[in-house]
Amino acid sequence: MSLVVIGTVAFDALETPFGKTDKIVGGAATYIGLSASYSVKPVKVVAVVGDDFAQSDIMLLEEHGVDTEGLQIKQGEKSFFWSGKYSNDLNSRETLVTELNVLADFDPIIPDSYQDCKYLMLGNLTPQIQRLVIQRLVNRPKLIVMDTMNFWMDVALEDLKTTIEMVDVLSINDEEARQLSGVHSLVKAAKIIQAMGPKYLIIKKGEHGALLFHKNKVFYAPALPLEEVFDPTGAGDTFAGGFIGYLAATDDISFDNMKRAVIHGSAMASFCVEKFGTERLLNLTQEEIEAREQQFADLVAVVPASAVQNA
Amino acid sequence: MSLVVIGTVAFDALETPFGKTDKIVGGAATYIGLSASYSVKPVKVVAVVGDDFAQSDIMLLEEHGVDTEGLQIKQGEKSFFWSGKYSNDLNSRETLVTELNVLADFDPIIPDSYQDCKYLMLGNLTPQIQRLVIQRLVNRPKLIVMDTMNFWMDVALEDLKTTIEMVDVLSINDEEARQLSGVHSLVKAAKIIQAMGPKYLIIKKGEHGALLFHKNKVFYAPALPLEEVFDPTGAGDTFAGGFIGYLAATDDISFDNMKRAVIHGSAMASFCVEKFGTERLLNLTQEEIEAREQQFADLVAVVPASAVQNA
Repeated sequence: MSLVVIGTVAFDALETPFGKTDKIVGGAATYIGLSASYSVKPVKVVAVVGDDFAQSDIMLLEEHGVDTEGLQIKQGEKSFFWSGKYSNDLNSRETLVTELNVLADFDPIIPDSYQDCKYLMLGNLTPQIQRLVIQRLVNRPKLIVMDTMNFWMDVALEDLKTTIEMVDVLSINDEEARQLSGVHSLVKAAKIIQAMGPKYLIIKKGEHGALLFHKNKVFYAPALPLEEVFDPTGAGDTFAGGFIGYLAATDDISFDNMKRAVIHGSAMASFCVEKFGTERLLNLTQEEIEAREQQFADLVAVVPASAVQNA
Repeated sequence: MSLVVIGTVAFDALETPFGKTDKIVGGAATYIGLSASYSVKPVKVVAVVGDDFAQSDIMLLEEHGVDTEGLQIKQGEKSFFWSGKYSNDLNSRETLVTELNVLADFDPIIPDSYQDCKYLMLGNLTPQIQRLVIQRLVNRPKLIVMDTMNFWMDVALEDLKTTIEMVDVLSINDEEARQLSGVHSLVKAAKIIQAMGPKYLIIKKGEHGALLFHKNKVFYAPALPLEEVFDPTGAGDTFAGGFIGYLAATDDISFDNMKRAVIHGSAMASFCVEKFGTERLLNLTQEEIEAREQQFADLVAVVPASAVQNA
């Protein structure tokens, strides 16, 4: 059930209404890898960093079951850096700094040991690089999940569409679904996007949960109403990591199992936002995760009136 | 199980991206009454109209099980009139005209035959008039549900709080919950608002569903992802009518039954938005309603992995 993840491994500097951080380890592949590692190990990462990335940071990933053989370290270069500041209600954020650094000419090299890839997670990255990874795998994985963002719709739409056509599951947020499809109704958007290639579409709605579409079927995963969101950074990646990790661990890509994977991913994301950056993802227990999944189940549980009458 | 509803019975003129109407019958009590009538009959309405309200309009309500004994008809005066225009995405609306007319000096008279009231629905109206209805009932109803809106928070906050303190269930939308509580987190807002009096709080989130809070418990009712929303007018009132109608019909105000009532109300609201005004609420069948409720159940249904393993 080998799981390969491509994405950024980077430094982030975050500012939320609750505080700010110096440069901390972040990036899509970091969140995806840590999140998936609670379901399946190792998580084989393809990414690139500069020599500013500490050996201890790499060790931290390795200790969590993230295989870093595919993590290129570019001597004399700096890691991708992103700095952002969230609004008071955490619903919007402003990018303060984006330094591409090593990402500017990232050539994703797939180690031979990754060629057993059965589950492939394409974290948010240039669509052309995401595509390269698919092309460089000798065998087409059983399932390819792709995350992307509005930025690529703005600057590389045709390139993006070419990659989208090659994947099984696309994971984007509601505004991105509207932008990509050109329609407001998410039900209509789901049809249009499925016609672009992906047989499954996940539309993430943040505090409003997530929708999973497949043909004419739809599943609604709620979000857990949280007393406080501390830092939303990485929530979408953590969701994606939990989703594909669950599928890889169970090796079952039925629609019913994808529903469970969406709930698992949502549970993982609900942990992520409780602390800065990846902090909360570093020492979860299976008991905590299962208890959180149970909270999601309880949240929507209704005892049918007929069951009461029959009791 | 007598159900009494107070609210506006009025004329609306609506404009959505899909078309516009002349003056049609609307108002909170109309939507609440029609919606509740599918659960319990009669629905006893307290409201006021002018002599521009046609006898045929009153007959229409009566035919649907709405008792209009408490509907005052003011000769020589005009009914409340509201005209609004929705934005292209239907997420916002502009009020074009508000003519209070008969509402300006509405004195809610409770017919003797309404004094058996066990379930009371206070549709959106001046908080002082909502309160008068409670005071004019000889016996305190078993359950009082109150709907209101941000307008009263802007212009009559203390008056509103006095009424809120007297009710069991408050039904408002997410922005109103934030305004009323002064906090952004809906979980925190729910605690603050429950401390104001209502033991139960419903937070409506439109296309994102609804939350039901009670003490430290929370229930998340999804909204059905719809291909097209035609006209959102009255959706909140239809929800409230379905909610209290279901409770009155089952005469069970447990938290578990309130969950079912929220799903029923959500199902009724999902019909309401399919056509202009009350049109879709005029000829639903019980089969259609049950099928829609099943869609809500299916939307969030997950077969636990353990059930699969044991199967």
